[in-house]
Amino acid sequence: IPSRSMASKTPVGFIGLGNMGSPMAKNLLKHGYPVIATDVFPESCKELQDEGAQILDTPAEVADKADRIITMLPSSPNVVEVYTGTNGILKKVKKGTLLIDSSTIDPLVSREMAFAAEKMGAVFMDAPVSGGVGAASLAKLTFMVGGVEEEYTAAQELLTCMGANVVYCGPVGTGQAAKICNNMLLAIGMIGTAETMNLGIRLGLDPKLLVQILNMSSGRCWSSDTYNPVPGVMEGVPSANNYQGGFGTTLMAKDLGLAQHTATNTKTSIPLGSLAHQIYRIMCARGYANKDFSSVFQFLREQDEDPETKGD
Amino acid sequence: IPSRSMASKTPVGFIGLGNMGSPMAKNLLKHGYPVIATDVFPESCKELQDEGAQILDTPAEVADKADRIITMLPSSPNVVEVYTGTNGILKKVKKGTLLIDSSTIDPLVSREMAFAAEKMGAVFMDAPVSGGVGAASLAKLTFMVGGVEEEYTAAQELLTCMGANVVYCGPVGTGQAAKICNNMLLAIGMIGTAETMNLGIRLGLDPKLLVQILNMSSGRCWSSDTYNPVPGVMEGVPSANNYQGGFGTTLMAKDLGLAQHTATNTKTSIPLGSLAHQIYRIMCARGYANKDFSSVFQFLREQDEDPETKGD
Amino acid sequence: IPSRSMASKTPVGFIGLGNMGSPMAKNLLKHGYPVIATDVFPESCKELQDEGAQILDTPAEVADKADRIITMLPSSPNVVEVYTGTNGILKKVKKGTLLIDSSTIDPLVSREMAFAAEKMGAVFMDAPVSGGVGAASLAKLTFMVGGVEEEYTAAQELLTCMGANVVYCGPVGTGQAAKICNNMLLAIGMIGTAETMNLGIRLGLDPKLLVQILNMSSGRCWSSDTYNPVPGVMEGVPSANNYQGGFGTTLMAKDLGLAQHTATNTKTSIPLGSLAHQIYRIMCARGYANKDFSSVFQFLREQDEDPETKGD
Amino acid sequence: IPSRSMASKTPVGFIGLGNMGSPMAKNLLKHGYPVIATDVFPESCKELQDEGAQILDTPAEVADKADRIITMLPSSPNVVEVYTGTNGILKKVKKGTLLIDSSTIDPLVSREMAFAAEKMGAVFMDAPVSGGVGAASLAKLTFMVGGVEEEYTAAQELLTCMGANVVYCGPVGTGQAAKICNNMLLAIGMIGTAETMNLGIRLGLDPKLLVQILNMSSGRCWSSDTYNPVPGVMEGVPSANNYQGGFGTTLMAKDLGLAQHTATNTKTSIPLGSLAHQIYRIMCARGYANKDFSSVFQFLREQDEDPETKGD
Repeated sequence: IPSRSMASKTPVGFIGLGNMGSPMAKNLLKHGYPVIATDVFPESCKELQDEGAQILDTPAEVADKADRIITMLPSSPNVVEVYTGTNGILKKVKKGTLLIDSSTIDPLVSREMAFAAEKMGAVFMDAPVSGGVGAASLAKLTFMVGGVEEEYTAAQELLTCMGANVVYCGPVGTGQAAKICNNMLLAIGMIGTAETMNLGIRLGLDPKLLVQILNMSSGRCWSSDTYNPVPGVMEGVPSANNYQGGFGTTLMAKDLGLAQHTATNTKTSIPLGSLAHQIYRIMCARGYANKDFSSVFQFLREQDEDPETKGD
Repeated sequence: IPSRSMASKTPVGFIGLGNMGSPMAKNLLKHGYPVIATDVFPESCKELQDEGAQILDTPAEVADKADRIITMLPSSPNVVEVYTGTNGILKKVKKGTLLIDSSTIDPLVSREMAFAAEKMGAVFMDAPVSGGVGAASLAKLTFMVGGVEEEYTAAQELLTCMGANVVYCGPVGTGQAAKICNNMLLAIGMIGTAETMNLGIRLGLDPKLLVQILNMSSGRCWSSDTYNPVPGVMEGVPSANNYQGGFGTTLMAKDLGLAQHTATNTKTSIPLGSLAHQIYRIMCARGYANKDFSSVFQFLREQDEDPETKGD
Repeated sequence: IPSRSMASKTPVGFIGLGNMGSPMAKNLLKHGYPVIATDVFPESCKELQDEGAQILDTPAEVADKADRIITMLPSSPNVVEVYTGTNGILKKVKKGTLLIDSSTIDPLVSREMAFAAEKMGAVFMDAPVSGGVGAASLAKLTFMVGGVEEEYTAAQELLTCMGANVVYCGPVGTGQAAKICNNMLLAIGMIGTAETMNLGIRLGLDPKLLVQILNMSSGRCWSSDTYNPVPGVMEGVPSANNYQGGFGTTLMAKDLGLAQHTATNTKTSIPLGSLAHQIYRIMCARGYANKDFSSVFQFLREQDEDPETKGD
Repeated sequence: IPSRSMASKTPVGFIGLGNMGSPMAKNLLKHGYPVIATDVFPESCKELQDEGAQILDTPAEVADKADRIITMLPSSPNVVEVYTGTNGILKKVKKGTLLIDSSTIDPLVSREMAFAAEKMGAVFMDAPVSGGVGAASLAKLTFMVGGVEEEYTAAQELLTCMGANVVYCGPVGTGQAAKICNNMLLAIGMIGTAETMNLGIRLGLDPKLLVQILNMSSGRCWSSDTYNPVPGVMEGVPSANNYQGGFGTTLMAKDLGLAQHTATNTKTSIPLGSLAHQIYRIMCARGYANKDFSSVFQFLREQDEDPETKGD
């Protein structure tokens, strides 16, 4: 009997054809996998159908036809519905099916889904991504994978068609945990860099010189050396393009909300992470929802900045 | 007439022979500079005298004998006293004297000292250091220098005897500004890394694996990749040695206090920097004053950590 | 047919006989209501049995016998289990039964329970309390009630046996919302009062005089005028008794966790509420878990406070 | 020889005729005191001259003519200049002169001024006010007075002409300390009330009902029961008038800056006070500078609030 991972060209199910899911599914098609997909929006389905995918009406129907299924959904309630709802995957899932959820959700929900899948004889892995729509199109995503180690190779086979890095993180939920942790530290580093650059500029430092000094010193971080939030300091980053593109403030606020939930549930103190969450939440409320998250530099800066010296 | 910078072996004044100042002055002696020094503690003076320095009673007397003077003092009030006090440098300073202050103080005070020195025909530069006692002994300090650009070469000549990097930052006060900015971002990155590692561990991630993931991702920062606060993750850092040595929590709290002062004075918003300041302040009050600042990992962690799973 | 509220001496079910539930159930007995109770701890049951209650094995059995049931449980998962678990209330609940949950939980869970109860023809109301064990014994609790307005009178009849104030707050979940909101503002006021008193004392103000000034000015709040956290300022409060008794830091951290959850779920910015949550979380980790929440005054104060003047 | 306090109708000096100082000086005139005044703005002087005051050119000249002088200035540097500058009060102050500074400044600066005054044989007291321009006009200010207790009666005689409450707080600087402490707690209570009201409304509570519940519970504070920030809840407060009038965000940010300075200088932890400072600072930068400080309710709320339910 051929093992699942050998039978690589059997159909792959794909549920959730949004901004991220659609290019991911296309990359599976490019690699020669038949794709059986569904989404609540008919237009998204139509587009993928034109690329050669078979479209079905519900997750349950997809589960009936495919023994490897990838889901890419906006948030926890959608994942719960797609897996355990009336027409959900688990209504028709076949024994031994590999279920890979690339949504970014609460790791607790991932564990619940894994538990429910296990009852049906299926295997659930969480595999959230980092990298945005661009990386999804170019198959350059990073996948952080949690789940039973024996199934990791089978998951890897599919994920490498859609991403450049696939990292095994441990038991189910740890993929989510790794992503949440990284993004929390990212948010803290970004706001910290924005505050620091604002302060340095106010104190009379040239921004480019300050960036140089930080990057050769202990203040160095990804937000200072790779994705600097100050316009004019770097090229090819959102701050060079009026904070368009990149990783939206709303998405960062969502990930920080997950970090806050998991920290609260595990009674972990995250004072800076909590405050970063609140700052991005306020930014969403004050018109920054769709700008790149590095726009916090602009948010913290004075409007109509007075060119004259500040201070008493 | 030989210029000051050519006359390199004329005496150099040194005021402030504490943990940092003493090894710095010794490095000047090693490079063949006659040193004329003073300090309020006789023992500190005695030690340097044994190394060949001439000891005088007051800053004013030092200023009477040396036309290049370096000061290394604990805080702003000491600097004000040493420069403008009854027996201060400016009471006897000679026209054209180069005054280099390596203390870490409010840049506003640096500017006031520069202004007062200028009135006496002297030149004041701020040149705070990064690197601790070890770096001071090994002449591996980094100097961040603010002041008139034309005098920078003269300052550099002396500073390179005591440090490995000398960076020109701009007008007087910008050396302090650069140091304050770097240390504020450092504190934010360190606390952020500590929170993130704590959260990841609680969520079931292996700490070493989490560090690997962060360091190849956008969460990367100096505190995650060079000075990780989690015991067992890295060698040769304070977290591997019960948080002894390194950069004490009290010193970080002091630098964050300066960052807060300058931010308040320039009306700059530094939400994470402020909270970092408060956290290090609380740590000082709760028994962490003399531990390395990476001990925030331990501070945020539960005492008598229960090995069983946390959470409701 | 006699209405439910007229048949006032029919049995009342009571589930959850902990520190709060036990005295509450006793007060029902004192008012002449037959009580049918259950709890997972046999000792708690035994104690109430001695007072005259009938003890059954499971919530389902209680639901089979009583058409008014009060639940008082530690947290959301317990409530979900007691209502919807294998032996839960809803397995045997009779049409028209009035279910009153006095636990403090996420209002979202209250709404889910109400929805599940409604499907079975029963009515669910949330009625969390303020006031601790003392108030429970003396029937001096305050109940904040959410649910269908027509049923409020029936609920009030029972709740007035156990409390001094019963407040109708609106649709189901609003009882929880009111409690969470109050406790969040309470926590903020308490920490704020503690910080303010610490600062004033450091600045040379007499604590009693400062309290007087605050209480006649715009700084006045419940924590300054009724429950002052500074030892020696007031009598009869936990600060006068080494922070024993009162409302424990752990419980406050739990309520702030609920506030944080609901704020995150509704995308509401609560910067001070979040930070208050983190501070109480850190205090739990640093040995303050079982002290009254006003002990934050002590937590923020320097250990082994030096009697001499502070500051540079 | 008549004592100073008996000679009550001898001239009183007044320096600083801004929005607050001008009505204060007028109230002295109304009580029959001859006023000798000065200000850097000629128009302010002209206006008071029309009311009967004598105008001089400099603080020194005022000090030459009056043995009781009140100063009311915007910030610390102005106070330093007016007292110790080239044409400052202390250049001509007479022995035994009573100097009362009603500016809100760093208590450290108050102490420095007191020390400098003492050297000249004069007595300095700090007497900052609470209450705005309206209270100044109606002589309803509250004065918080710090200084030598024996001189308090003499100060009180003048201050009661301008205010309704005069409170003796202790040694010099404690008047400032009391004001700073009160305003810090006020800011924390206001932001906390705004967050709480926002959260409650999002959770479905009627704002007026929520205010009632808070005010009869432990969440009660001056900002909830006297100066509620939610439009429609109370009349006669700035929230009922589009946040016009009242106590401007800029002024609150200034006072919180003083609180932060004194806390940093005394090594006091003020986590919520610091964050409140940062929030008001951000508000100043985002267009709220001139609105009443209760507008934080609006700042934290979503722009173009969607009438539909929030949350995932």
